[in-house]
Amino acid sequence: MARFEIHSQLLADCHRLGQLQFCHLLLNKNATLPWFILVPQTDVTDLLELADEQRNTAMREAATIAQVIKRRFGYGKINFAAIGNVVPQLHLHVVGRAPDDPCWPAPIWGNLTVSREYLAERVAEIRQLLVRDCSLKVES
Amino acid sequence: MARFEIHSQLLADCHRLGQLQFCHLLLNKNATLPWFILVPQTDVTDLLELADEQRNTAMREAATIAQVIKRRFGYGKINFAAIGNVVPQLHLHVVGRAPDDPCWPAPIWGNLTVSREYLAERVAEIRQLLVRDCSLKVES
Repeated sequence: MARFEIHSQLLADCHRLGQLQFCHLLLNKNATLPWFILVPQTDVTDLLELADEQRNTAMREAATIAQVIKRRFGYGKINFAAIGNVVPQLHLHVVGRAPDDPCWPAPIWGNLTVSREYLAERVAEIRQLLVRDCSLKVES
Repeated sequence: MARFEIHSQLLADCHRLGQLQFCHLLLNKNATLPWFILVPQTDVTDLLELADEQRNTAMREAATIAQVIKRRFGYGKINFAAIGNVVPQLHLHVVGRAPDDPCWPAPIWGNLTVSREYLAERVAEIRQLLVRDCSLKVES
């Protein structure tokens, strides 16, 4: 495979946090909810078409992010999805949800009308948290 | 765990097809799209909180259903999600999508306004297809 490039739309919508073992980790710029996006380094476009071992690795990485959302961000519920109807590159949504969030109980995709930006300091803080908790590698 | 019961809302919304190794398999009554729902036999409510081995099994079963949707139903794209904000019991959506479907490219959750019913014969046909292709066990 040629050098792996993250889709330009994902880069436009997200802060780039770093790399896990198999997935690049992004943070959606909308700070209303903790909304992480994992981009596995593959040209397969559907999660359920990945080879078992790769899918298991991607899901394990998603699970470590879900733990951070629950334990560090205090959200009790995780919504997980692989959709990709607009951006074809495989990407996995891992989103913290709570009964008092502005979109509950609707799924966020297409329904989250509230938007708020992260401060640069907060993004740096989240990145450092993930370096500690998830062995995130920060790209230089 | 006490005898496993599928949530009444899922039973109201779906045709019950049978059992895979770990998951019960349901078919959403809306026949507009091939929309399958897997209900793992567990009281864990978040996919990403399942133990690795159980999650891998559930995902492998979802992948076999995705293959059927692609090969037998002719849909090129799969949307996958574990949401559960309304029905807390863990359930996995595996949905066939196509650029000419009535909801494309929006995710179906909360957006699929078109509805069509399956004929009983078609449900039986799908069940038999899955018995052959996915070793579905039909409950008596």
